[in-house]
Amino acid sequence: MRQVRHDKPIISSLFDANDFYKFTMGQFVWQRYLGTEVISAFRNRTKKVRLAEIIDLGQLREELDHVRSLRFNNSELHYLRGTNEYGDRMFCEPYLEFLKGLALPQYELGTDGAEINLRFPGPWEKQIYWETIALAIVNELYARALMKPLSRFEQETVLSTGRLRLAEKIKFLRENPTIVFSDFGSRRRFSGEWQAYVNDVLCEEVPNQFLGSSNTYLAMRNGTVPMGTAAHELQMVVAGLRDGQKDWIRVSQREVTEGWWKLYGYGLSIFLPDTYTTRTFDENLTDEEVMKWKGDRWDSGDPIVFGESRINRYERLGIDPKTRMLIPSDGLDTAMIKKLHDHFYGRIKMSYGWGTNLTNDLFDSTMRGNLWYGPLSLVIKPVSANGRGLVKLSDNPPKATGAPEDIKRYMEAVGYDPNTPSVECKY
Amino acid sequence: MRQVRHDKPIISSLFDANDFYKFTMGQFVWQRYLGTEVISAFRNRTKKVRLAEIIDLGQLREELDHVRSLRFNNSELHYLRGTNEYGDRMFCEPYLEFLKGLALPQYELGTDGAEINLRFPGPWEKQIYWETIALAIVNELYARALMKPLSRFEQETVLSTGRLRLAEKIKFLRENPTIVFSDFGSRRRFSGEWQAYVNDVLCEEVPNQFLGSSNTYLAMRNGTVPMGTAAHELQMVVAGLRDGQKDWIRVSQREVTEGWWKLYGYGLSIFLPDTYTTRTFDENLTDEEVMKWKGDRWDSGDPIVFGESRINRYERLGIDPKTRMLIPSDGLDTAMIKKLHDHFYGRIKMSYGWGTNLTNDLFDSTMRGNLWYGPLSLVIKPVSANGRGLVKLSDNPPKATGAPEDIKRYMEAVGYDPNTPSVECKY
Repeated sequence: MRQVRHDKPIISSLFDANDFYKFTMGQFVWQRYLGTEVISAFRNRTKKVRLAEIIDLGQLREELDHVRSLRFNNSELHYLRGTNEYGDRMFCEPYLEFLKGLALPQYELGTDGAEINLRFPGPWEKQIYWETIALAIVNELYARALMKPLSRFEQETVLSTGRLRLAEKIKFLRENPTIVFSDFGSRRRFSGEWQAYVNDVLCEEVPNQFLGSSNTYLAMRNGTVPMGTAAHELQMVVAGLRDGQKDWIRVSQREVTEGWWKLYGYGLSIFLPDTYTTRTFDENLTDEEVMKWKGDRWDSGDPIVFGESRINRYERLGIDPKTRMLIPSDGLDTAMIKKLHDHFYGRIKMSYGWGTNLTNDLFDSTMRGNLWYGPLSLVIKPVSANGRGLVKLSDNPPKATGAPEDIKRYMEAVGYDPNTPSVECKY
Repeated sequence: MRQVRHDKPIISSLFDANDFYKFTMGQFVWQRYLGTEVISAFRNRTKKVRLAEIIDLGQLREELDHVRSLRFNNSELHYLRGTNEYGDRMFCEPYLEFLKGLALPQYELGTDGAEINLRFPGPWEKQIYWETIALAIVNELYARALMKPLSRFEQETVLSTGRLRLAEKIKFLRENPTIVFSDFGSRRRFSGEWQAYVNDVLCEEVPNQFLGSSNTYLAMRNGTVPMGTAAHELQMVVAGLRDGQKDWIRVSQREVTEGWWKLYGYGLSIFLPDTYTTRTFDENLTDEEVMKWKGDRWDSGDPIVFGESRINRYERLGIDPKTRMLIPSDGLDTAMIKKLHDHFYGRIKMSYGWGTNLTNDLFDSTMRGNLWYGPLSLVIKPVSANGRGLVKLSDNPPKATGAPEDIKRYMEAVGYDPNTPSVECKY
């Protein structure tokens, strides 16, 4: 395996690093919110890294421009048409026709001091496909910047470290054969080549535990399950569109939950409840919905509290929690997976969405000069919809994202009180 | 590109070198002829090459055994499910389920003097998938045997020759931009890597003329059209099953033609008329069928005579030949394509199935010692169905295949007379 490739673009297919949930959300958006003007913005949460001084903006522009030249090909559309893991014909022909003609919209790139200012304005149904692709590009350019000052041998050492850590993960998985998981690490990957390598190795070494990848290209390439349902983005934008109406959070939440079920039914019925605190989400959910849906994805707050709250809820309704699913997807590593598995295994179905730590675990997490040898925390989130500022509270509201005045308004709307937990749980 | 790879199996996916027509025929067979016992046999028609003395049977066995360990994966089945070039949902779910569980049946391998004796007995619906895969394996092992005695530089020279000949083909195609064609060369390819290279180059260099590949894996990989309809095999086996009945050739031909239309309709309506002479086929065809079907594939005899006979027929029926298609697929090279194109272009739609000369054109066609540095003429054909010997006459009956007494019987049945042309044509 070559360490650093400069001879071909980072992204060479619109499936690569494009997480499957962009298509499930993409069709939803295309059917219901066509023409909504959304702006998504890149943000580096690893503040100690002065990204604009490390990554060459010309190179970044070249990679992004190359993505704009790509189109979905017939085989990719055949694959989407034939995907049946979540139900038969989940993608309708007119949506596939739309994808066939899609070119990703223009982006805006500049700097803001030491930070990269990268924004994706455009109709929601088109700009939605930038998120995970653009994150994968920035991450790979950053990884190249980390590799560049190293000698050839040091570069090999980095890859050897990555391999040995992957070997430790595989050992852990073999010792815990009831753990099943998926790769959710496209957006934070060291490189496309490395993510592909990790997927190949997992397919060979732990085929019964490694279920699939959120990376549509790799799931297709390896015949694993394309993993994904929905992201906070959906709830955030729709809330923004209903902002100003009475009870807009409840209204938008009902709109997304009912619309999602109507479009995908049981196959993709995984709640992502924490956009505006799980407590609020739960209050707006009907018992009938809890009875019907498969389960929840956990993405913020305390996972034990969250899981217990789901089990409580099921038991209150006389549902056997063992028939339902919990998908932890925030900050997983073997220790966290082990802790959650020991706590929940046998009580509720667990399926782990393993991200950054799976696809970008090669460095020793030290600062050397201005370079942080470790993964970055980068996100691309919608910041406005038809001009309205967007907010995400999560189950950790003090870390809410959005403009301060918007956050305040949303917190009031959900009746946020620092002394009340975001997830109600008798545990 | 590495010249000769010994570190991985020749076939690593059941899509690779598996021509798309094996699936279109495969579903037809699975739906209608389940459990028919068919034996297909390998035959080397390049008699000057003593194949069993050149190819290591242990290696051949290893490669064939590896194929038996392969299964279709989810993505391959998604792709077949989503294929829409020939109509929506051309493959039914139960057939895809069947493929999901399919393992290729055991083969029989031995020698017969200097010849390899390789046979594929088994239920037709399973052994049908061996043909093009096994041919590709034998060809690649032979190509390795040709490369082995060469120095590293001589090996590079072979590949350079291949590249330059490909460049000449591309130049020819650019000079003749109305020529559209497909790769039909899986079974005769120099190697899998070389066929993939040729496909990649054609996609980049002549994207508007290169339509697709019969190799399902490469069509899927490159997003080109998976090319193929049916082979003589279908007509041969069904004739064998009806052999002994009155008018069995006519009866079997009606059975295949009507069944094929019923299953696939217009999408795959390409006649392959020459199994028992085109004259016989045409006599058994109704005008309504000629009115409905897309066109013909030409695979033996004189292509000009054949094409003219099609144009005559269309004109007799008041059909504009320009709305119909002719697919030459026998022994094409640039000279032959040019000749056919000059003759037919503008009169009938032409689409060329370019085989051996496209994917195995690297050598200088000389004997050196016991090695023929050129492509081999290898085939795998069904030889019996439920114990009955099978026959193919083609439009060149003196070269008919089958046991002499069977050939005689079939020739009598179609009223073969060496003085009457196999294709009736007023041209």
